[in-house]
Amino acid sequence: MTMNTASSKDVYTVALIVVGNEILSGRTQDTNTSWLAEKLNGMGIVLHQVRVVPDIEGEIIKAVRELRGVVDYVFTTGGIGPTHDDITAESIAHAFDVELELNKDAYDILVNHYGSEEQVTAPRRKMAMIPVGAGLINNPVSGAPGFQIGNVFVMAGVPRIMQAMFDDVKTRLSRGKPVLSNTIACSLAESAIAEPLEAVQKNYPSVNIGSYPHFRGGILGLSLVLRSNDDEALDRATRDVIALIAAQGGEPHALSVQSSGKIVAG
Amino acid sequence: MTMNTASSKDVYTVALIVVGNEILSGRTQDTNTSWLAEKLNGMGIVLHQVRVVPDIEGEIIKAVRELRGVVDYVFTTGGIGPTHDDITAESIAHAFDVELELNKDAYDILVNHYGSEEQVTAPRRKMAMIPVGAGLINNPVSGAPGFQIGNVFVMAGVPRIMQAMFDDVKTRLSRGKPVLSNTIACSLAESAIAEPLEAVQKNYPSVNIGSYPHFRGGILGLSLVLRSNDDEALDRATRDVIALIAAQGGEPHALSVQSSGKIVAG
Repeated sequence: MTMNTASSKDVYTVALIVVGNEILSGRTQDTNTSWLAEKLNGMGIVLHQVRVVPDIEGEIIKAVRELRGVVDYVFTTGGIGPTHDDITAESIAHAFDVELELNKDAYDILVNHYGSEEQVTAPRRKMAMIPVGAGLINNPVSGAPGFQIGNVFVMAGVPRIMQAMFDDVKTRLSRGKPVLSNTIACSLAESAIAEPLEAVQKNYPSVNIGSYPHFRGGILGLSLVLRSNDDEALDRATRDVIALIAAQGGEPHALSVQSSGKIVAG
Repeated sequence: MTMNTASSKDVYTVALIVVGNEILSGRTQDTNTSWLAEKLNGMGIVLHQVRVVPDIEGEIIKAVRELRGVVDYVFTTGGIGPTHDDITAESIAHAFDVELELNKDAYDILVNHYGSEEQVTAPRRKMAMIPVGAGLINNPVSGAPGFQIGNVFVMAGVPRIMQAMFDDVKTRLSRGKPVLSNTIACSLAESAIAEPLEAVQKNYPSVNIGSYPHFRGGILGLSLVLRSNDDEALDRATRDVIALIAAQGGEPHALSVQSSGKIVAG
C-alpha cells in the first residue's frame, strides 16, 4: 500500500496467518480479516498480507518465519484448542526454536476457569502448553489464553474469542496515524474515468486510490475508495475525484467519508 | 491437509492469490475463497493456501514465484481492469520474465464487446495487454478476458465475473477424486472428546478430522468435520465419531453428509 511513510512510524504493519483447514475447505467464511483490518486502520496499522495455511506444522512455521521479518507484527488465528488438530502453539515454538512448556500462569487460569485441578484434564492441560519465553494473552470468553512471543501474537480462531483477545493485544501495539477512508460511488464505467483518476493518484502520492466495480441488483456500479493517514490530502483528493466524476457526466455519491472536510455528494 | 495421496494424482492442489487492497483494508469481505473451495472439492482439487497481497507489483511477483512451484495450479483474482491500480497482468508478466503485448484475440473480443474500434479507448485497450505466451480465459459477463500462463490462471476479482471465468478455467484443470465432507455437531466441550477423537484420526489417516467450536445464539457448540476422497473410510470414521459423541453422553447431529453410507444422526 502506498501509504505516506515519511516518518517510518506513521504506519505500522501486520501480517495475519489464518491456520485454517476450515477456511481452505470452503466450510467457514473468514470474517476475522475484515474485523481486524477495520480495528487496525484506526490505530494507524495496516494489514499488509493475509495468509491462510492448512493445519500442517511445516506450513505454519514457514509462514511465521517468512513474515515476522517483513512486518511489525504477525497475528495468527486458529488452532489453539485441546484437540489433535490444534497444532499452532507447537508450530510457533518450533518456528522460534524454543520448547513448549507447561506455563504456570496459563495452568492457573485454567484451574480457575474450570474450577479445580481435577477439571483440568489432559486435553485441557494441553492449552497451558506455551512456548518458553512467551507472554500470555487474556481470554475472558473461554479461559484458555493466547500468547505473544517476539512480534507474533497467537489468538483463537472463533471470532468472539479472537475479538476478546484483541482487546488485550491492542494495548501492546505501537500506533501510527489512523488510516482514514472515503468512498465515492457512481455508475460510470471504470474506463471512462481511468485516465483522470490516474492523474489524481499521481497528484496525491500519500493517498491510495482504488477503483472497484461491483454488481448490485444486476447493475454494474463503481466505488472509488481513497485511503490515507493524511486527512487534508485525503480531503483534497476526494474533492478532485468527485469533480472528475461530474466532469465525465456521472453522479458522484459519497458512500462513506472519514476525512474531516465535510464532503457531501449525492 | 492429510488427504490420501497414495496415487499422487488423486489430489491436485491450488493456491489462490487475492490481489486485494480492498480485502486488506477491511472494506470488502472476500467470498471468492469459499466459492472456489467448494467447486474445487468436487473436482478432487484442494485449496492449499490463500494469500491476500496488496496491490504492489513486488508482492504479486513474490507470491506467484513462491507458490507456482509448490502447487499444481495458481489462481489469482483481482487487478485486471482498466484503472491505474490494476497491475496484475504486468506483475504476472514480470513474474514470468516475459513482455506484455497487445493480444490480438483479446483486442478483437473488446472491439466486439464494445461495438467498434473507436470504443476501445486507451484504458480499455489496457485490458488487451496480456503476457506473451498466455492463453485467454473467456469472460462472458464483461468482455475483458482473463488469461492463463503456465500453471497460473489470472481472473477478475468481482465475484460474478470470477465465477463466469471459472467456467472456462475448470475445463483446463486435471481432476482428482472428489473430496467429500461430513459434519457432525454436538454440544460437548472439545476437551471431552479430544482423546477418543484423536484415536479416530489415527485409525483413519486418509480422513482429515477437524474440531471447530462455535458460538450460536451465545451457546458454545462443536462441529466435527470429516473430509476425505475415500468415501468408505469417511463413512466408517464418521460412524466412529457419532459413536464416541454418544459414549461421552452427547447428542450427535449429522449437519451435512456427503459420503454415501446413509448416515443419520440427530
